[in-house]
Amino acid sequence: MKNYTTLTKAELQEELKVVQAAYDEFKARGLKLDMSRGKPGEEQLRLSLPMLDVLTSESVLQAEDGTDCRNYGVLDGIPEAKKLFADLLGVSPKEVIVEGMSSLTIMFDTVSKAYTHGVLGSKKPWMAYDRPKFLCPVPGYDRHFNITEFYNFEMINIPMDENGPDMDMVEKLVAEDEAIKGIWCVPKYSNPTGSTYSDEVVRRLANMKTAAEDFRIFWDNAYAVHYIYQNDPLLNIMDECKKAGNADRVFIFASTSKITFPGSGVAVIAASEDNIAFIKKQIANQAISWDKMNMLRHVRFFKNVDGILEQMAKHAEVLRPRFNAVVDAFERELGPRGVGTWIKPNGGYFITYFTMDGCAKRVVSLCKDAGVVLTGAGATHPYKKDPKDNTIRIAPSFPTTEELSLAVELFNICVRLASLEVLLAN
Amino acid sequence: MKNYTTLTKAELQEELKVVQAAYDEFKARGLKLDMSRGKPGEEQLRLSLPMLDVLTSESVLQAEDGTDCRNYGVLDGIPEAKKLFADLLGVSPKEVIVEGMSSLTIMFDTVSKAYTHGVLGSKKPWMAYDRPKFLCPVPGYDRHFNITEFYNFEMINIPMDENGPDMDMVEKLVAEDEAIKGIWCVPKYSNPTGSTYSDEVVRRLANMKTAAEDFRIFWDNAYAVHYIYQNDPLLNIMDECKKAGNADRVFIFASTSKITFPGSGVAVIAASEDNIAFIKKQIANQAISWDKMNMLRHVRFFKNVDGILEQMAKHAEVLRPRFNAVVDAFERELGPRGVGTWIKPNGGYFITYFTMDGCAKRVVSLCKDAGVVLTGAGATHPYKKDPKDNTIRIAPSFPTTEELSLAVELFNICVRLASLEVLLAN
Repeated sequence: MKNYTTLTKAELQEELKVVQAAYDEFKARGLKLDMSRGKPGEEQLRLSLPMLDVLTSESVLQAEDGTDCRNYGVLDGIPEAKKLFADLLGVSPKEVIVEGMSSLTIMFDTVSKAYTHGVLGSKKPWMAYDRPKFLCPVPGYDRHFNITEFYNFEMINIPMDENGPDMDMVEKLVAEDEAIKGIWCVPKYSNPTGSTYSDEVVRRLANMKTAAEDFRIFWDNAYAVHYIYQNDPLLNIMDECKKAGNADRVFIFASTSKITFPGSGVAVIAASEDNIAFIKKQIANQAISWDKMNMLRHVRFFKNVDGILEQMAKHAEVLRPRFNAVVDAFERELGPRGVGTWIKPNGGYFITYFTMDGCAKRVVSLCKDAGVVLTGAGATHPYKKDPKDNTIRIAPSFPTTEELSLAVELFNICVRLASLEVLLAN
Repeated sequence: MKNYTTLTKAELQEELKVVQAAYDEFKARGLKLDMSRGKPGEEQLRLSLPMLDVLTSESVLQAEDGTDCRNYGVLDGIPEAKKLFADLLGVSPKEVIVEGMSSLTIMFDTVSKAYTHGVLGSKKPWMAYDRPKFLCPVPGYDRHFNITEFYNFEMINIPMDENGPDMDMVEKLVAEDEAIKGIWCVPKYSNPTGSTYSDEVVRRLANMKTAAEDFRIFWDNAYAVHYIYQNDPLLNIMDECKKAGNADRVFIFASTSKITFPGSGVAVIAASEDNIAFIKKQIANQAISWDKMNMLRHVRFFKNVDGILEQMAKHAEVLRPRFNAVVDAFERELGPRGVGTWIKPNGGYFITYFTMDGCAKRVVSLCKDAGVVLTGAGATHPYKKDPKDNTIRIAPSFPTTEELSLAVELFNICVRLASLEVLLAN
């Protein structure tokens, strides 16, 4: 197996014929597979089925403080749910609002209100700036970028490495520009690179001087307990912000979407008590209470953080062979050919593949034409513009193992094909 | 029993002593009762307990189109839920988005997005007007007014009578002013007066000429099936809007909050297909999917609209004696004394009591001091300003029958006391 970058034009052309033939053969099979999103697979979903038996018509349906979970009331969640998430996130129950559904909805809502009304300590609504700005570590999560694009923030790319965002750049930007209002962070098993922020990065985020008094870190701890190979340690951002005298700087988000049933879970925002008081006053305009029955169902199923961790160990067992299969195939087929690099994460939902520059769109399109839908190339960057056109997010969780190996086989062929095209065009 | 308005000053003073004594006696009892909100009572909540047994770990958890309800996917709701609500509201399933939680959350969200981005057909976001305006039939629902106050709409009071809002006034205003963007309507068993809009009012709303091309009727059909004494007919607003060539004019909202468990229900927005397409594109930024498990639980419990109507007949049986008790006490104690009027509704959650002018705040405050919390006086009007200070919303659903008769007894004493104070002050 030869490294493509060492081949002569003639050898490249010969190889192209072989790979093109392999691709055409694959295309003829008529695959139909969606690997575009980080969706749990069947085996993972089964893990939460017993939760459906937790609440019945015979159950006591009062929270531990006597709140009737069947009725209106309690804007910030039942006490046992607040405690469970507080323990999970390393904050106090007073620093938590438990809502419903998904953290994405809460994040959208938080940006929306900051845009029209500002956050605690804002001199004016964020929309009142000529153009408010948001820092976007890349590659990152497309749905974050959609939110800030919807509200017309200018999004600024911040390069990520294995320790998190480039803090020199972040510090410089936030110190100078009052219109920079926030930064999107997925601090643990980052979407999509799987990086976990280093202690230094967390401390610098907590301590940095910001021109904006109302700057906020949007800390989307979506994969707080979603390890696959190893539970990465992550410094407690709330503690660090408090130590730095910036207790109000961080909004933490999390949910059970990839712990139990996506879309039918419980989601939270955690922040300083002052932030929480401010937010509660705002959300009193939009809700009387969230789904307390579903909170009760979740808390009684898990009981405590250990219960969640046990569940996550089972998720990890299901996911590990899938991640192995993808990475093994890359090592076997792509590594020796010198047609890209990839990141094997310790947890989370994604494997990031970096193609040769200018190949990502082509690879995604080739896969699609052969029946395998990947996350759109560019989705990992604001405005869907990946400057090098080299980043592909692979989500191995949903397909069956058989489907996955077929999909990866096709992916590898597509990477080779696109790389050959680029090499021949040069 | 004498009509207070016919008494001499001396007689009023004599009566005051008697009523004051009765009040003091009541106060000494140390009641503690919350009648501030339209919350279902224990007997009503029990009606939905069997719904908790509908989904178990053994259930088929796919929607009828094969959608796995346990996973991400389907932004507008599972087909059987769309059909159920479409049938309930008299629209097509294509005209429905089923979300989660409460219609209040959807209404807030709809106003929020209209404010920052406009609705289908908007030339500019509603916030881009010098000051956008909203028509508010009064008395009305405080949480509606909170939403438009939060987004700084100028709210214009529109008087309600038993047929709905004053349409002469509505037609005149909307024809002249492009900044008037919407009207809040609770068309059936209106909150709080219990009125159901007449056919003529519905037709005029659908047909009226509006200066704003993007005017919207916010049709909060919260009590669509919530009859107590009689199921009032309500003309189908969607049909009327279509006939009038104004298919995009109406947003219809509804939920199961007072059908099953408040806060843990399913909620919908219904609108023209073009509106729905526009809204779906917007909400794709904030959600991947809503709680499909809870949709499935609701649809399998009710099966169809008849199932919902059977449930509502049981609710009515529980509510009827409560509403009777309040109205009977008013007829007995307050009517002959000439100290106010009230509306006995055919359905919904409230009885509206109109005191003598300038008495409502005092009555609510007297009740509170004696341990019975009513909805704040003024809450039925924008900015909490009831110009005549005479409207009190009474919510008889939540207390037990015993508590309710005590509370009404106290209420009657407070109304008499406040009325005597006003009459003596003149």
